[in-house]
Amino acid sequence: MFMARSEYDRGINTFSPEGRLFQVEYSLEAIKLGSTAIGVATSEGVVLGVEKRVTSTLLETSSVEKIVEIDRHIGCAMSGLQADARSMVEHARVECQSHAFNYNENLRVESCTQAICDLALRFGESADGEESIMSRPFGVALLIAGYDEDGPQLYHAEPSGTFYRYDAKAIGSGSEGAQAELQNEYHKASPPTLTRAHSLTIVDAEMLVLKTLKQVMEEKLDAKNVQLASVTKEKGFRIYTDEEMAAVVERLPAN
Amino acid sequence: MFMARSEYDRGINTFSPEGRLFQVEYSLEAIKLGSTAIGVATSEGVVLGVEKRVTSTLLETSSVEKIVEIDRHIGCAMSGLQADARSMVEHARVECQSHAFNYNENLRVESCTQAICDLALRFGESADGEESIMSRPFGVALLIAGYDEDGPQLYHAEPSGTFYRYDAKAIGSGSEGAQAELQNEYHKASPPTLTRAHSLTIVDAEMLVLKTLKQVMEEKLDAKNVQLASVTKEKGFRIYTDEEMAAVVERLPAN
Amino acid sequence: MFMARSEYDRGINTFSPEGRLFQVEYSLEAIKLGSTAIGVATSEGVVLGVEKRVTSTLLETSSVEKIVEIDRHIGCAMSGLQADARSMVEHARVECQSHAFNYNENLRVESCTQAICDLALRFGESADGEESIMSRPFGVALLIAGYDEDGPQLYHAEPSGTFYRYDAKAIGSGSEGAQAELQNEYHKASPPTLTRAHSLTIVDAEMLVLKTLKQVMEEKLDAKNVQLASVTKEKGFRIYTDEEMAAVVERLPAN
Amino acid sequence: MFMARSEYDRGINTFSPEGRLFQVEYSLEAIKLGSTAIGVATSEGVVLGVEKRVTSTLLETSSVEKIVEIDRHIGCAMSGLQADARSMVEHARVECQSHAFNYNENLRVESCTQAICDLALRFGESADGEESIMSRPFGVALLIAGYDEDGPQLYHAEPSGTFYRYDAKAIGSGSEGAQAELQNEYHKASPPTLTRAHSLTIVDAEMLVLKTLKQVMEEKLDAKNVQLASVTKEKGFRIYTDEEMAAVVERLPAN
Amino acid sequence: MFMARSEYDRGINTFSPEGRLFQVEYSLEAIKLGSTAIGVATSEGVVLGVEKRVTSTLLETSSVEKIVEIDRHIGCAMSGLQADARSMVEHARVECQSHAFNYNENLRVESCTQAICDLALRFGESADGEESIMSRPFGVALLIAGYDEDGPQLYHAEPSGTFYRYDAKAIGSGSEGAQAELQNEYHKASPPTLTRAHSLTIVDAEMLVLKTLKQVMEEKLDAKNVQLASVTKEKGFRIYTDEEMAAVVERLPAN
Amino acid sequence: MFMARSEYDRGINTFSPEGRLFQVEYSLEAIKLGSTAIGVATSEGVVLGVEKRVTSTLLETSSVEKIVEIDRHIGCAMSGLQADARSMVEHARVECQSHAFNYNENLRVESCTQAICDLALRFGESADGEESIMSRPFGVALLIAGYDEDGPQLYHAEPSGTFYRYDAKAIGSGSEGAQAELQNEYHKASPPTLTRAHSLTIVDAEMLVLKTLKQVMEEKLDAKNVQLASVTKEKGFRIYTDEEMAAVVERLPAN
Amino acid sequence: MFMARSEYDRGINTFSPEGRLFQVEYSLEAIKLGSTAIGVATSEGVVLGVEKRVTSTLLETSSVEKIVEIDRHIGCAMSGLQADARSMVEHARVECQSHAFNYNENLRVESCTQAICDLALRFGESADGEESIMSRPFGVALLIAGYDEDGPQLYHAEPSGTFYRYDAKAIGSGSEGAQAELQNEYHKASPPTLTRAHSLTIVDAEMLVLKTLKQVMEEKLDAKNVQLASVTKEKGFRIYTDEEMAAVVERLPAN
Repeated sequence: MFMARSEYDRGINTFSPEGRLFQVEYSLEAIKLGSTAIGVATSEGVVLGVEKRVTSTLLETSSVEKIVEIDRHIGCAMSGLQADARSMVEHARVECQSHAFNYNENLRVESCTQAICDLALRFGESADGEESIMSRPFGVALLIAGYDEDGPQLYHAEPSGTFYRYDAKAIGSGSEGAQAELQNEYHKASPPTLTRAHSLTIVDAEMLVLKTLKQVMEEKLDAKNVQLASVTKEKGFRIYTDEEMAAVVERLPAN
Repeated sequence: MFMARSEYDRGINTFSPEGRLFQVEYSLEAIKLGSTAIGVATSEGVVLGVEKRVTSTLLETSSVEKIVEIDRHIGCAMSGLQADARSMVEHARVECQSHAFNYNENLRVESCTQAICDLALRFGESADGEESIMSRPFGVALLIAGYDEDGPQLYHAEPSGTFYRYDAKAIGSGSEGAQAELQNEYHKASPPTLTRAHSLTIVDAEMLVLKTLKQVMEEKLDAKNVQLASVTKEKGFRIYTDEEMAAVVERLPAN
Repeated sequence: MFMARSEYDRGINTFSPEGRLFQVEYSLEAIKLGSTAIGVATSEGVVLGVEKRVTSTLLETSSVEKIVEIDRHIGCAMSGLQADARSMVEHARVECQSHAFNYNENLRVESCTQAICDLALRFGESADGEESIMSRPFGVALLIAGYDEDGPQLYHAEPSGTFYRYDAKAIGSGSEGAQAELQNEYHKASPPTLTRAHSLTIVDAEMLVLKTLKQVMEEKLDAKNVQLASVTKEKGFRIYTDEEMAAVVERLPAN
Repeated sequence: MFMARSEYDRGINTFSPEGRLFQVEYSLEAIKLGSTAIGVATSEGVVLGVEKRVTSTLLETSSVEKIVEIDRHIGCAMSGLQADARSMVEHARVECQSHAFNYNENLRVESCTQAICDLALRFGESADGEESIMSRPFGVALLIAGYDEDGPQLYHAEPSGTFYRYDAKAIGSGSEGAQAELQNEYHKASPPTLTRAHSLTIVDAEMLVLKTLKQVMEEKLDAKNVQLASVTKEKGFRIYTDEEMAAVVERLPAN
Repeated sequence: MFMARSEYDRGINTFSPEGRLFQVEYSLEAIKLGSTAIGVATSEGVVLGVEKRVTSTLLETSSVEKIVEIDRHIGCAMSGLQADARSMVEHARVECQSHAFNYNENLRVESCTQAICDLALRFGESADGEESIMSRPFGVALLIAGYDEDGPQLYHAEPSGTFYRYDAKAIGSGSEGAQAELQNEYHKASPPTLTRAHSLTIVDAEMLVLKTLKQVMEEKLDAKNVQLASVTKEKGFRIYTDEEMAAVVERLPAN
Repeated sequence: MFMARSEYDRGINTFSPEGRLFQVEYSLEAIKLGSTAIGVATSEGVVLGVEKRVTSTLLETSSVEKIVEIDRHIGCAMSGLQADARSMVEHARVECQSHAFNYNENLRVESCTQAICDLALRFGESADGEESIMSRPFGVALLIAGYDEDGPQLYHAEPSGTFYRYDAKAIGSGSEGAQAELQNEYHKASPPTLTRAHSLTIVDAEMLVLKTLKQVMEEKLDAKNVQLASVTKEKGFRIYTDEEMAAVVERLPAN
Repeated sequence: MFMARSEYDRGINTFSPEGRLFQVEYSLEAIKLGSTAIGVATSEGVVLGVEKRVTSTLLETSSVEKIVEIDRHIGCAMSGLQADARSMVEHARVECQSHAFNYNENLRVESCTQAICDLALRFGESADGEESIMSRPFGVALLIAGYDEDGPQLYHAEPSGTFYRYDAKAIGSGSEGAQAELQNEYHKASPPTLTRAHSLTIVDAEMLVLKTLKQVMEEKLDAKNVQLASVTKEKGFRIYTDEEMAAVVERLPAN
């Protein structure tokens, strides 16, 4: 069966006899090699958290940017190839600024996500279009968090150009365990209802993110190897300072 | 025989000795991996229904858009690669708006379908034309429902660029069983005549769509894992609200 | 021998050692998978007839367009890939309209056929020209019927870009049997002479087309699974209405 | 040896280790599959003759155009792929008209031939030039007959872009036998001298062409399966009418 | 396992089934063949040092440029393919000058690094963008040292387009041993604290760089086969003169 | 060894591990299949001579052009693919005329040769330049003879784009034997000195060319199967008339 | 090991798993097949010398140009493919003239060398840039000698785009032996010091070049099979005349 597969998976953008696009599927594997990132949405806002893999004490951890701002009201956490992510984020920033400039309003979070996914779809061998940046699928997944007239929202975008909205979502190497954890813990804190009012607070979400990261990280979690960010109506998107990180990690239960 | 096939199926757009285009045939397999979508046409209008595969309780089901509006009078249900569908729908929307702007009238449903199929045909290795978006066939099938001076219409468009008009049609993973079911049930409700006046009501069609989906879905059908939409002369295209969905599912016979 | 062939037939546009273009030959196979179409020329006009393969009672047979108008005085019947045919017909329509606009006269039937064949020739890997639409040969054959100052004419155009004029011609899956039938029956009705005045009437031609289709169709021929069209000096090209179809089929002898 | 060859003959335009261009050589095979065409030059003018393969009595033989006019003073007979020939002839017509328009004189026959051969040379994989029409060699040979200030001339042009002037030349499936026949008969009628004054008349040439065709055709030669044309100072290029054909064939000795 | 890998590693920009980009990984090997380069950041500035491989006494060592100026306030040390490095540095210089011209301020060190990494990402088979310079990944790594409003900074940029900020970093053939050495010695000299104030002086850094190079070089280190440079607030980027090199090497402890 | 070679010789423009360009080497083989051409330089001028292969008595030998004029003062003899030669000669003619037009002086013979060789170098797969005419090396060698302020000159240009000046040079199928003959006979007639004053007359050169051709030709040399041309200060380049050819051949010693 | 290599060395510009670029390495082999060239720098100027391979006494040795002028103050000696060298030299000449025209000063020798190397780097499959001339690496190495405000300089540039400055350097088939010889002899004549003042005179350098060439040439060195050139402040770049060559060779010690 491996032989049969190998005949179709080298074409950048070719269907296998079973209707699969192997290069896109392989790019998902690149993401599974990345560090874990988690997002949790509440009625107050969205919290993003990432693991920073610090391979050397000589590395300035502040330069390991796995959470970045897209616009004042949108940010994202990433897992996978850092350079690919930069291209996507740069594209999203331009879309946001262009929209704000043209329409004098913030780009909606879903529209921003869609702009990123449109870019993801536009790769391939004979792309003559003006916006083809890549000759392969992007090797990165994003958790996009934002706040607009529809309230706080969390989206997950992947290399195939597919995106969905989630209450809580984990990506990267620890995503499988983390997602199961989130599934359990989120509903304990916020039982699902038909109207699905998010009953968690931002502080609850911070704890949920950190506790989940702690479970899947190989290193012991501390204030330097994780990073949090939040997006709320009042403050927009902001990345936690070293002091805030220290304070939040402090609050985390010991075991 | 498999060996012989494998020599021809990797070229994006190459005939096999039997005159087949394998990449196009493989793209049909991608659609068979998609969720089921059903359309039923009546003299009052057309009803579309889709299965939503909800893989996690943390997923916001409202973001799983398998039915979308193309214009005020046209909408479509899709099965297959979500990102591919978005490209096609976006193309169709532009065609509709452009037609309305230039001619001050709605684009006819068949013309809209044809525009989508023209796009589907324009893929391939050496496409120098300005509208080549894809280097492979689209991996998605669409059920296009609309209402124009010719009354309500339902079209099925597939990756080869072929389209036909149907009274009732199912696509996606459950399409084989669903189509047989439709064939039986549609004519019970509306026996075929030479003039083929659709004797079903919209309400009949809602029930037929849901009953058919119920038969082919693995999960138990409820108001959250299916979605309906309709297009009628009076109201144009509209996606059912959560309340409407709940009410229709309520009416569905128990067994 | 199959091995030797397989080394040359994957290049889109490459001669084999015997001087053959295999991709063009394979595209002829795609046509042999298509439904049967027949044309019969008379001194009064030309009659085209096609088999409609109705795979489901839910399919609106009127949307299965195997005979289409190109201009007021030219139409065609097709066999093969429907979407490919649409491209060719669209091209032919533009040629006709452009000619009429520029020269204030109808494009001659042969010129229209040549325009279609020019398009058919322009495919291939490195086509930089502005009108290359296809990266492979078209998978469709056309019977082009028209009426101009030279009287009624019937042309057969195939993927290689070759075209010839015929008194009567069949294409598609039943073409072999149908052509033999036509050869016999046409001359019984209209014995060949040096000046080859067509002694058949339109009504004779209708019967000849239907009788020939009846012989090669697997389904029983009825007014819904065949379609006729004619082109005459007086009425130009017109597709028969459901009522006309019913009346003609009625006249067909029983056995 | 076949194995070694097969490694070099698929590149469109690649030398084999022996310095051969196999794709060009293979295109010559396509010509050998074509019908026979013959040209004979005399001091009065040039006569061209072709075999028409009439595969069906329903085929209008007048549409089998194997001899065509290029300009008022130049015409050609062809053997090989009909659609390829049309491209070359169309190109030659434009050259002739353009020359006549710019310089107010007829394009010389040799210049016309050279224009055709320049086109033949311009094929290949990376042709960026504006006049590359083909991604493979043309599969057609031409006999170009014309009359200019240098008197009547007959040229043979082949896919490699090579051309030579001949007194008499045969191409196509029967060319080998026909050329031997011409070699014998031409000199009987017109013994070679240093000044090579053509002592044949047009009528002699008509007989020589028909007698040679008769020898190599599988079907019995008659007024409908061959076609003649001539180019003379007085009348320029003209294709024989049905009446003229009948008269010439009449004059042909019986056995 | 080698076999499986070899199926994916020749595509310039193709994911393997494990989500790896082999060509990018192989380019890292080109860097491991390069000479060693080391950077050490302090609160006073950054010191860069490289090994010069002098293969012949006839080679003018001053032409072996492994440390180059990018702008008055930024310089870099390189390891890998010299010609590739020149392209990247040239690109960075243009970015710096363009920024200075447009905004009348120095380009920030991180922005300069990002500009280099953006270039690194833009390679590949179908790159139509205007800035694609390479059809393969760059085979070079850079240590970028600069001074801006954020103080002295040291970045490491690699072929994948990834970059991080370091206190001290080694690249090239001796990088493994050198990095371990730096890790030990840097913190002895400058123990890590939360605020990470660099307690080293420039002179400390010079010694650390030279001592580390000495450990990994095969040749005996002298004033001609190593080169130092520094970037400080006061003097900007400057490459040490022969006299300065001699003086620094003089100060190096004997064993 | 053949196996190893075959892995590198199909790329149009790829080095083998031994640093060879096989496609260029193979093109030299195409020349060895061509007819023999010889050039001899004297202090009075240069004489060119070619063998004409007359395969049929019906072929007009005057149309077998193996010696052509480039400008009034330059001509060339060719061996190899006739159509390729025509492209190169056409290019050289344009260069000559353009130079004469712009600078009001004759293009120097060496510059003309260099222009031809520049063209020869510009082939290949990704040639984006405006003057790439060929996707393969030219399959032709030229002997370029001319007269300018530096006196009479003879150059040999080959597919690799290399050219050298010769006193006497043979190319084509008989070149090996002919060159040895020339080497012997040239110096007998004109012993080499430091100043290398050519002591041959044009008449000597005619005899040397014909005697050498006679030795290597398979057919018996006569006034119709060879062609001479000369370039001198007084008369420029001129091809011998039939009468002149007859006279020169007459003078040739019998055995 | 050869098998593994062969999988990576046909891509024009692809890294092997060990980080090597095989096509560039193979191009170095083309240079090793070339004739030997030597350069020696002194404080008075630089002397270049090349071996001329004279394969026939009929070849005009003056047309074997292995040393050429780039500008009045720069020249170069080459080894490898002659036609490739011409492209590079032509490019360098344009750079020099353009610089002189724009800035009214001579292009510096290093800048000229860098311009040549930039060209060398810009080859490859998907080179869209305006200056891509080659689809493969250049098969030539250059010794570039010049004189500018920094005094006399000798650079060695190779296909990878790498260049270094040398006191004395040999390239081509005899380079290995010649370089060893130079290493010994140069320092005997001019012992290395820290300031590396070149104590050789031009006359010393002439002798050193010729003695070294003599050692590695297969033929006996004489005034016709070697060529010298020099560049000095006073006379700029000049190629020795036949008389000068004779005089210098005369001075060469007998054994």
